Amino acid sequence: MCNLHGELLEAYDNYRNELLDAGLLLGSGVEGVYGLSGTFEGIIEAFERYVTREGAELKPEVMRFPPILNRKTYLSTDHIETMPDLMGSIHTFKGTQLEQLEMIDKKNNGEDWTVKLAPADVMMVPAACYPLYPTAANTVLPEEGRLVDLRAFVFRHEPSPDPARMQIFRQREYVRLGTPEQARSHRDYWLNKGQEMLKAIGLPVQAELANDPFFGRGGRVMAATQKEQELKFELVVPVATDKKLTAISSSNCHLDHFGKEFNIQTQDGNHAHTACIGFGLERITLALLKTHGLDPEKWPAEVKQVLDI
Amino acid sequence: MCNLHGELLEAYDNYRNELLDAGLLLGSGVEGVYGLSGTFEGIIEAFERYVTREGAELKPEVMRFPPILNRKTYLSTDHIETMPDLMGSIHTFKGTQLEQLEMIDKKNNGEDWTVKLAPADVMMVPAACYPLYPTAANTVLPEEGRLVDLRAFVFRHEPSPDPARMQIFRQREYVRLGTPEQARSHRDYWLNKGQEMLKAIGLPVQAELANDPFFGRGGRVMAATQKEQELKFELVVPVATDKKLTAISSSNCHLDHFGKEFNIQTQDGNHAHTACIGFGLERITLALLKTHGLDPEKWPAEVKQVLDI
Repeated sequence: MCNLHGELLEAYDNYRNELLDAGLLLGSGVEGVYGLSGTFEGIIEAFERYVTREGAELKPEVMRFPPILNRKTYLSTDHIETMPDLMGSIHTFKGTQLEQLEMIDKKNNGEDWTVKLAPADVMMVPAACYPLYPTAANTVLPEEGRLVDLRAFVFRHEPSPDPARMQIFRQREYVRLGTPEQARSHRDYWLNKGQEMLKAIGLPVQAELANDPFFGRGGRVMAATQKEQELKFELVVPVATDKKLTAISSSNCHLDHFGKEFNIQTQDGNHAHTACIGFGLERITLALLKTHGLDPEKWPAEVKQVLDI
Repeated sequence: MCNLHGELLEAYDNYRNELLDAGLLLGSGVEGVYGLSGTFEGIIEAFERYVTREGAELKPEVMRFPPILNRKTYLSTDHIETMPDLMGSIHTFKGTQLEQLEMIDKKNNGEDWTVKLAPADVMMVPAACYPLYPTAANTVLPEEGRLVDLRAFVFRHEPSPDPARMQIFRQREYVRLGTPEQARSHRDYWLNKGQEMLKAIGLPVQAELANDPFFGRGGRVMAATQKEQELKFELVVPVATDKKLTAISSSNCHLDHFGKEFNIQTQDGNHAHTACIGFGLERITLALLKTHGLDPEKWPAEVKQVLDI
């Protein structure tokens, strides 16, 4: 284990333990899965109201999706090709009473009791915008395109001691569907606005060119292409430690990726382009608690004023 | 198909289609899994603030858990014995690149591509209070017991055309941990208060003795015992149709069931008793929309006043 790795682990452990000791996070016994205190949730709620206020003049459609989505929708995307190691597939018991007894026996003997479970019609949501696209499938967008305000829990199977790398967390997003120009200008607008918003609450964010964590060898090529085309920017900030910056927001151009997969068209008959800004609500809260201290009542007056808390 | 069944199905279809046409629900292609419009979510938020106000004088601890929980916690309960058919077990891909290609081949050939997925360390939350108990495991409660305010998404694998029977929905709960008397009086207090609260927003609820949907032949005995001991009451109201009443809230005594499973003790060294009131947030919203109409701006003034919308 190299020194940096050791230092990082120590920083993760220290901050995680501080949060657990303060009761802001509640341990579940699984890395990256926590309960949240009322104080923690209250900061998320305040930040969400801030996002709503800042986006209000754009008059977005508001949609809220649950943490699960149609298995067919999942398979309509390329997630199984690009990030299969992060997926959550939901399985259930569809057997008889006899099969139940066999399953319980397996469990009691410490064997894998899940072997006969059947896949349900649903998967965990991998990103907040995935459930949106099928609702727009096979439509032609109005000339001005569409702007949608989303929030959802998303699942990423990546257990980690870093308190900022949760297996389940909430993304608040503004997604634009439209022409290439509409999508690109949405991304650029929010990349800039997101920085202003986060700086206004005392988070010293920087924009960084980034890539998604694509799987395997082919993934390295995809990541390089994504960077070359400057499709993904993250707003990063120190959370557990100054030694490593953590993304708390990301602004992405998807080109016509989802437009093609779900046959969403613009007036000119081309496939729609999409773009989004996503705010990682738990990470932003963790960054605020690290930057301003664990007691929001003692945060700087100007931060409390912007967040209206 | 008997007449009542046919009538019910028609009523479910009618109300579901009304909600979909109004854009209040967004179809996912899977029964019981919907996106919600901003209006629908706004009603949930208003009802939640109402619950918070009504519970404030009791000074509950506030905790918010995500929709997944530790697989070990799940197995510490008897859910696999009592309601296995409702479970959601989360599985993921932990293989190599070669195994990924085999999985994708299976998917492309229309075979079951999930066969080699591995169980992750987490399961879907079956009821909002399940993640709470391990956080109190092996503790002795203070003399006054504890009162916890919870909200979580819960998963129940029961696809249904009834818009009020969702596979994933939110429960808002007040859970009491304490002596048998503390638990029982919490249940009785909220059974009464819950009725008052729901009647105050124009929902003509009735209290009904009820039982959990236990699985199999043994389940029928458990259900009968639960009823005999008067452990579970539901507040029911017409939603899609007057022909069948739907539970929108339930008040439950768990006796020392969870106290034993998680070794939570009272001062006298006995296992703690627990009790809860749960509000089904999506169902309450569906009941309000059915009772007062699909446009909350046109709801009766007294309902809007109580909900502060």
